[in-house]
Amino acid sequence: MKTVSIGSLTLDSTKTIDNVELAYERHGDEKAPAVLVCHALTGDQYAVGTEGDPGWWAGLIGPGKPVDTNVFQVIIFNVLGGCHGSTGPLSINPATGAPYRAEFPTLTIRDLVRAEYQALNKLGVNHLVGVVGGSLGGMKTLEWGKMYPEFVDAVFPLAVTPYYSDYGVAFNHIGILAIENDKEFNSGNYEDSSLLKGFEVARMAGMVTYRSGNMFNQRFGRINDGDEFNVQSYLNYQGKKLADRFDANSYVLLLKAMNTHDIQEAVLEVPVYSLSFTHDLLYPSELMVPWLEKQKDATWKIIETDFGHDGFLVEFEKWGGFIEEKLKRLVVPELTR
Amino acid sequence: MKTVSIGSLTLDSTKTIDNVELAYERHGDEKAPAVLVCHALTGDQYAVGTEGDPGWWAGLIGPGKPVDTNVFQVIIFNVLGGCHGSTGPLSINPATGAPYRAEFPTLTIRDLVRAEYQALNKLGVNHLVGVVGGSLGGMKTLEWGKMYPEFVDAVFPLAVTPYYSDYGVAFNHIGILAIENDKEFNSGNYEDSSLLKGFEVARMAGMVTYRSGNMFNQRFGRINDGDEFNVQSYLNYQGKKLADRFDANSYVLLLKAMNTHDIQEAVLEVPVYSLSFTHDLLYPSELMVPWLEKQKDATWKIIETDFGHDGFLVEFEKWGGFIEEKLKRLVVPELTR
Repeated sequence: MKTVSIGSLTLDSTKTIDNVELAYERHGDEKAPAVLVCHALTGDQYAVGTEGDPGWWAGLIGPGKPVDTNVFQVIIFNVLGGCHGSTGPLSINPATGAPYRAEFPTLTIRDLVRAEYQALNKLGVNHLVGVVGGSLGGMKTLEWGKMYPEFVDAVFPLAVTPYYSDYGVAFNHIGILAIENDKEFNSGNYEDSSLLKGFEVARMAGMVTYRSGNMFNQRFGRINDGDEFNVQSYLNYQGKKLADRFDANSYVLLLKAMNTHDIQEAVLEVPVYSLSFTHDLLYPSELMVPWLEKQKDATWKIIETDFGHDGFLVEFEKWGGFIEEKLKRLVVPELTR
Repeated sequence: MKTVSIGSLTLDSTKTIDNVELAYERHGDEKAPAVLVCHALTGDQYAVGTEGDPGWWAGLIGPGKPVDTNVFQVIIFNVLGGCHGSTGPLSINPATGAPYRAEFPTLTIRDLVRAEYQALNKLGVNHLVGVVGGSLGGMKTLEWGKMYPEFVDAVFPLAVTPYYSDYGVAFNHIGILAIENDKEFNSGNYEDSSLLKGFEVARMAGMVTYRSGNMFNQRFGRINDGDEFNVQSYLNYQGKKLADRFDANSYVLLLKAMNTHDIQEAVLEVPVYSLSFTHDLLYPSELMVPWLEKQKDATWKIIETDFGHDGFLVEFEKWGGFIEEKLKRLVVPELTR
């Protein structure tokens, strides 16, 4: 696993984390113009992955793909506070010699971005053509445009809104309480996330927001094996799968960071190329478009899909061309003429 | 509290419950044509209530109101399996001398209706002009039309679909697991529902489906008292309020009964007067209208509202007239000419 050390990081809360490391992946020619890709809540730096184990955006990033690694280098960090190699609740707190667990300091989306900015500097990357991300990654993408307009040429926020809505905070609240109320949670000092049934329930409270009700209904058709409905087995499976691979303290920390997201008053100095997806329960275009209309230079599309929020992870044929064209124009400006 | 005893009841599961009682309220002249009103999941028989403590449908039912108690008598039962006086998990199991708790037999929506049919016979009511109900009450209303077409002149299902969708089953699953996973739940042998944080979480997983995301966002506007968002306080309050007044075993039992609801293949012999509400996440008109189109005699309206599912509990001025007109035509048929 590749990691980069950025030393101490002072947070919005004024607390400082020492010995901060971010895990990352880097694809393409390291001299090529750089694109930063931001993962969502339970994503990771393995957006591209391998042929045998393709990553969550393998359909979008690669040679000849919309984010073309023949043209760009692509960097993806595991978020600060995450659990795939970056400093987070599973890391050793240098002050105590023990893992932070639930004592990890509260984070904002800005803190996540600030850490990556420092990490890019350490990696010798001093400019980004674009930042691209969806959902929590879209929140970071928007903050990149606000915090570092001279460092980035354009931002590509997908399936996100300028602030996390109260309706989103409500679903996060259900998830946080389901975890914290689990009898094995023990104020964050649990044995293992995979033992937390409440973490599985929290995942389920996320799953029902990732795809549209219509897609659930079409897919499962009330099929029932006698003991339970297939939709119940599906949720159980997804819950267990996440609890087996993710850290519950990290999940809670990142849900709380999402709740802080709010740049609704900001007017960005950089172009914004944005995608919203129909039937996205928590990030409806109705909350994004009025903000986009206030920007100096914003272009957007609303992608018709039955997926809803997960639209940014699928159906690249519908919207990958938008990303590709806008990104390439940033490095070959004559295309715009 | 008024109750009516119906003796033994054999359920769809083939199990029998002995000494079944249903609690009820009755309004208007007992010789007038009868309308049965069906409450929703956490509702009760006090639809009308009192002046000082108006019930959940006080705006709809009363003298001169859409369900006019100057014309009709109105009967509302607490559902079988409920916790407001009808036989349910809190009742003593005659076989053991102790409360049923989680051992209460599994129920279907049909079982709830069958119990009420027997109770009406005991009360000397041998015909209904109409059955009116929303949500779980709407499921019962539809079953009334299917099971007892000779007993009822017309059914008025509101904010419901001919089957409970997989998406609905998904939300119920989250609620059930949140309760069953609570450390105080103890397989249903808890001290008191009010101690179950998981019951509060289950309620929250319902609350986010009762009103539209837009209404949440408009109402709360990301207002935050520093410690938490107002939407979090609101959900905490609603969760606690339900856990203080409702029984968790009853809640789980009724969620499971809702999951069984499915009359999608039925063509009713009685007229159906139906209302769907826009932005109803779990009971969208898209699932109801195709079924209505297959019926022999169905009339419906889709009510535009920002409330979503809770539309059937508010804004009576928008749709009460539809109920009033259709109900009165059933007793004064010349109005239809």
